[in-house]
Amino acid sequence: MGVNYFRRDGRDSKFVLLEHLGVERLLGYEPYRDFSAEDFAMILDEALKVGKEVLGPALQDGDRIGCAYEGGKVVTPDALKECWRVLNENGWPSATYNPEFGGQGLPEVVGGLVGEIFNGANMAMMTYAGLMVGNGHLIEDFGTDQDRAMFLEKMYTGVWGGTMCLTEPDAGSDVGALRTKAIPDPEADDPRIYKIEGVKRFITCGEHDLTENIIHLVLARIEGGPAGTKGVSLFIVPKIWVNPDGSMGEPNDVFCAGIEHKMGIHGSSTCTLNFGEQGKCRGILLGEPHSGMAKMFQMMNHARIGCGIQAAGATASAYDTARIYAKERVQGAPLSDRHGAAVPIIQHEDVRRMLMNLKAGSEAMRAFIAYLLFNSDVAKHDPDEAERQKAQARVDILTPLVKAYPPDLGYMLIRDAIQVLGGAGYCSDFPVEQYGRDIKILSIWEGTNYIQALDLVGRKLGAQGGKVFQEWVMELMAFAQANEADQDFQADCKLLGQAVGMVADFAQRFAGYFKQGRISLVPMFATRFLECFAETVLAKLMLEQGLIAGGKLGTVDPASADGLFYQGKVASAKFFCRNILTNVFGRYASLKTEDLSAMEIPEEAF
Amino acid sequence: MGVNYFRRDGRDSKFVLLEHLGVERLLGYEPYRDFSAEDFAMILDEALKVGKEVLGPALQDGDRIGCAYEGGKVVTPDALKECWRVLNENGWPSATYNPEFGGQGLPEVVGGLVGEIFNGANMAMMTYAGLMVGNGHLIEDFGTDQDRAMFLEKMYTGVWGGTMCLTEPDAGSDVGALRTKAIPDPEADDPRIYKIEGVKRFITCGEHDLTENIIHLVLARIEGGPAGTKGVSLFIVPKIWVNPDGSMGEPNDVFCAGIEHKMGIHGSSTCTLNFGEQGKCRGILLGEPHSGMAKMFQMMNHARIGCGIQAAGATASAYDTARIYAKERVQGAPLSDRHGAAVPIIQHEDVRRMLMNLKAGSEAMRAFIAYLLFNSDVAKHDPDEAERQKAQARVDILTPLVKAYPPDLGYMLIRDAIQVLGGAGYCSDFPVEQYGRDIKILSIWEGTNYIQALDLVGRKLGAQGGKVFQEWVMELMAFAQANEADQDFQADCKLLGQAVGMVADFAQRFAGYFKQGRISLVPMFATRFLECFAETVLAKLMLEQGLIAGGKLGTVDPASADGLFYQGKVASAKFFCRNILTNVFGRYASLKTEDLSAMEIPEEAF
Repeated sequence: MGVNYFRRDGRDSKFVLLEHLGVERLLGYEPYRDFSAEDFAMILDEALKVGKEVLGPALQDGDRIGCAYEGGKVVTPDALKECWRVLNENGWPSATYNPEFGGQGLPEVVGGLVGEIFNGANMAMMTYAGLMVGNGHLIEDFGTDQDRAMFLEKMYTGVWGGTMCLTEPDAGSDVGALRTKAIPDPEADDPRIYKIEGVKRFITCGEHDLTENIIHLVLARIEGGPAGTKGVSLFIVPKIWVNPDGSMGEPNDVFCAGIEHKMGIHGSSTCTLNFGEQGKCRGILLGEPHSGMAKMFQMMNHARIGCGIQAAGATASAYDTARIYAKERVQGAPLSDRHGAAVPIIQHEDVRRMLMNLKAGSEAMRAFIAYLLFNSDVAKHDPDEAERQKAQARVDILTPLVKAYPPDLGYMLIRDAIQVLGGAGYCSDFPVEQYGRDIKILSIWEGTNYIQALDLVGRKLGAQGGKVFQEWVMELMAFAQANEADQDFQADCKLLGQAVGMVADFAQRFAGYFKQGRISLVPMFATRFLECFAETVLAKLMLEQGLIAGGKLGTVDPASADGLFYQGKVASAKFFCRNILTNVFGRYASLKTEDLSAMEIPEEAF
Repeated sequence: MGVNYFRRDGRDSKFVLLEHLGVERLLGYEPYRDFSAEDFAMILDEALKVGKEVLGPALQDGDRIGCAYEGGKVVTPDALKECWRVLNENGWPSATYNPEFGGQGLPEVVGGLVGEIFNGANMAMMTYAGLMVGNGHLIEDFGTDQDRAMFLEKMYTGVWGGTMCLTEPDAGSDVGALRTKAIPDPEADDPRIYKIEGVKRFITCGEHDLTENIIHLVLARIEGGPAGTKGVSLFIVPKIWVNPDGSMGEPNDVFCAGIEHKMGIHGSSTCTLNFGEQGKCRGILLGEPHSGMAKMFQMMNHARIGCGIQAAGATASAYDTARIYAKERVQGAPLSDRHGAAVPIIQHEDVRRMLMNLKAGSEAMRAFIAYLLFNSDVAKHDPDEAERQKAQARVDILTPLVKAYPPDLGYMLIRDAIQVLGGAGYCSDFPVEQYGRDIKILSIWEGTNYIQALDLVGRKLGAQGGKVFQEWVMELMAFAQANEADQDFQADCKLLGQAVGMVADFAQRFAGYFKQGRISLVPMFATRFLECFAETVLAKLMLEQGLIAGGKLGTVDPASADGLFYQGKVASAKFFCRNILTNVFGRYASLKTEDLSAMEIPEEAF
C-alpha cells in the first residue's frame, strides 16, 4: 500500500458552503428540510476522513499496480476494492441521489464539495462511482417503472457498475458518426429489446471486478434510423443479462477486447468493448427511439461539471502536497536576505508565488463548482419559477466553463507543484507528478475543451437572445463598481472591471464576425474567450470571498485559526486578480490582432 | 521494440543554419576552415537518419522497460545499448569536441541542431552522451596533461561514461551546503589524490551498463576548507580506478544505492551514489583546491543551453506527431462549414491553432538555440576581439533564458499536442504523453528555472553596468522600427516594439525596487520577467526569419516544397507575435499591480 499524501484541510469547503454561498437558502427547500448546516459540516468532515483513511492511501497503488487485462477480464488493484466497499457501505456515491432508490438526497452543492474531496484523494477510483450513479440517474429519469425496479437500487448502492458507451474508433468528437447498430430482436417478447452490434472505444470502467454486473448505456443507431445525431438511440446493455424480476441471467454478448495504457488514472480501466461479436448481444431501449443524444446529454452535462470537480480536487491535493513540503524542506537563503541562514523554501519568493498560484487557483475552482451546483439546487427546488429559470440559465452558460477551464488551469498549477518539490517532484514518491498525469484526461473526455468553447460561443452565448450573458456581464460590472472603493480590493475591482469589459467586447466582436462572414475568427478565439470569461467568473467569486473574509477579520484574533484563514483568503482574492485574471489582457491583445495566420497557412506547410 | 514516431523534416534546421544565421561567417574561422555549408547540411541529414533509424525506435522501450536496479547495478534496456553503439561508432556525442582527443571539431551551432534532432528522437538516451562529453570537456580544460591522457579519448568515444555529482539529500539548489568531504590520501604518492566520503542524490546516469567505466566528477569540501560554495573542490572519481597508464585498476568504493522512479526519462538512470562507504573511495583533485564551483559552472552553462536543446527537440517531435495525426484523422465538420462533410481534423480551427502554437513555438526555440550557439562560436573563434566579447556577453545574458523558457513553453505546447490527438494522445501508443512527461525535468535540473531568473535579474542584467541588456533592448527597438512598414509584419513589429518597451520598463522598475528597498518585488516577478524577455528575443528571431522567407516567396513557386516552407515560415512568424508574444501584456499588467500578497500572507495561512 502506498503512503497517504491526502491531507486536505476542510476549512475552505465549509467557508464556501456556510459563509460564502449561504446554504440556509437551500435548507428552506422541501427536499432538504430535514438537513441542517451542521449536518453538512459533519458530512464534509466524514468525507475528509474517508479521503484520508481509505481513498488517499490507495492512490499510489492505483497508479503503480494499475488495471490488468486478462482474457477479457479486468483486474483492479486490491486497494481499490477496499475503497469501493467503504464508499458504498456509507452510501457516498449516491449522496445526492434519490432516497427512494437508495440515495441520500443531499443538495448538489454538498455532493460537489464531497466529490472535490474524494477526487482529490483518488480521482481514478471515483470514476467507477461517478459512472455508476450517473448511469442510474439516466435510467431513473427516462426508464420505465420496470427499468427502475430492475436496475436502480443496485446502481445507487454499489452492487452494479455503469458506463457511458459513446466513442467508437471512428466516432469520437463526432458522436453522430457512430456505426453501432440496433435491430429489433425477433425472439424477444418485449419490443424494447434489440440486438446490438458494434465496437466502442475508450470506455471508462468498461470492464472491472468491483461489481458483480456492469450496466452499459450504449448509443446505437436503430437500423434505418436517420443519419447523424438525430438517429441515435440509447440502450441499456447489461454485461450479465438482467431478468424482469431483477435477478441476473446469462452473460450478455459483451466482450472487453483490451484496455489502454495511459498517461494517468491507471486505476481506472479504459476499455474497448465489442458488443455482439457472436450476434447475441441484447439491449433494452431507454425511452423513445432516436432520442438518445438528448438523454445522453443530461448525463454528459453532469459529467462535465464533474470534470471541474475532478480538476479542483487534483489541484487542491497538489497544493496540499506542495505547501506541506515547502514548510518542511530547508534550502538556501531568500534573495531578500541572501547572506542569511537557510530557510524553509516556503520563504523563497518564487516558491511562495507558485504556492499562491496553487492556493488561489484551487480555491477559485472550488468556489466555482460550489457556486454552479448551488445554482443547480436552486434551479431544481426553489419555489419561485423565475428564480429557478434564472439559476438554470446560469448553470447552462457556466457548464462549458467548468468543464474546460479548471482542467487546463489545473494542469498549469500542478506543474507549479512539481516545481516546488524540485527533483523530488519529478520522482514518484510524492504524488504531484501523478496528479499532473491524472488531470490531463479532463480536457479531453466528456467533450474536448474545444467542444466546450464551441458550445459556449455557438449556443450558450446566444441563449435567450444573449440576455443570460448580458445579465451576467452587467452583474460583474456592477459588482466591480460597487466595491471599487474597498480598501483591500480597489485595484482588484478595477482589474475585474477592465477584464469584464474585454470579455464583453470579445462577445460583441464575435457577433460581428458572424455577421461579416469572418466566421473563422470565432472558433480561432473561442477557447481563449472561454478562458477569459471563466477568469472573470472566478475573480468575482474570489472577490466575494475576500470581502467576506476582510469583513470578518476585524472580529477575530488574527493569530487564531479563523484569523489566519481569513488573512489567507484576502491574499488569495488579491493574488487571483493580480496574477491570474491578468491573463485576460494578454489574450485580448491577441484577439485584437484578429490573426488568422493559422488558417491562411497551406495545410501542406504543416 | 516500440514504433518509431520520430519523423522530423530537417528543412527548418537547414533554414536556420544556412538561410537565417549565415553560417558562412563561421567557415572563415580557422578551426572550421575545412568544412563547407554542404558538409553541415549533410551532417544534419545523417543525424536525421540516425534519429529515424536508431534513436526514435528505441524511445518507447526506454520509457516502458526503463532502467532496472539490481544490487548496486543498473541495467538499461537493450535498445539503448544499440543506440549507444551507433552513436559512438559515428562520433556523434563528441561532434563539437576537440579532434585532438577523438572529437569531430564541428561548430557549436551545428552540434546544437544535431542535438535538437537527437533529443527530439530520444531525450533519455542522450543524457548518457551529454554527460560523457561534457565531463570530458571539463577534464580537457582544467586537468593536467596526465589527466587528459588518462581520460579524454575514452570519454569522447563512448568507452567511458561521465556524471556531474553536485546534489546531495540536503544540498540541492543550495550547492554550497554540501557535506561530501575530501581528505588527502596518506597512502597515495600523488598529493592530488584524496579520500572521498559522502552521498550524492539525483545523479543522472550515475550507474548504468552502457560503458565499461564511469568517470564521476564530484563536488566535495576538502576538510578544513571554507564554508559555502567558496570551499568546494572538484574531483575526478572513477567508478573503476584508472591507473596512470590509462588502464583500469580495482573497482573504486562507489556504490549505487538505488534509482528513482520518475515521471519521465525512464531510460535515463537517476541514482543515489554512496562514495566511500568502506572508507576506500579515491578521487583526483581537478585543478586547484576550492575552485570547484567555477569549473562546474562551465559545464553547467553548457548543460543549461542543453536544456533548451532538449526542450526544443521534444517539442518539435510532439509537433511532428500531432501534425501527422491531424492530417490523417478524419472527424466532424469545421464550425465554418458545420453542415459539411467530416474533414481531417487539421481543418478544425482550434486544432489548427494548437498546431500553430506547436509549429511557431518549436521553430522559435530552434532559432533561439541556434542563434545562441552561433554566438558561442563567434565568441570563441572570431578574429576580432570586440566581436568575440560582444558575442560572449550575449551568450551570457541569454543562457538563463534558454535554460528556463523553452522547457516551460514546451510543457505547455506538448499539452496542446496531447490535446490534438484527443483520447489517443492520453494513451501511450503515441509518444506525445511521453514527451510531456520527459520534458518536465528540464525546468528543474541544471539549476531550477527560478535560479535562472535570479541569475538573470541578479547578475546578467547588471553585466557591464547594464550595457549588454540596454544594447539588446535598443537593437530590438531599432529592428521593430526598421520593419514597421513591412506589409507582412507591420502589426507584429508594433507588438514587438510594445513588448520590448514593457521588458525595458520591467528592468527599470527592478532597479527602482532595489533602490527603494522593495527588494521582494524583484524575485516575485523575476520568473515572469525572464519569460517576457525570452518572448521578445524569440519574436525578433521569428520576424527575422519571416522577413527572409517573405523575401524569397516571390522567387519560388508557391506550391513547391520551398514555396510551402516559406509560406509556413511567414505564418509562424506572425502567429508567434500575435499569439505567444502577447503573453507579455498579461504579465506586464500583473507587474504593474506590484502585488506582494504572496509575501504578506502569514506562512501559517498556507
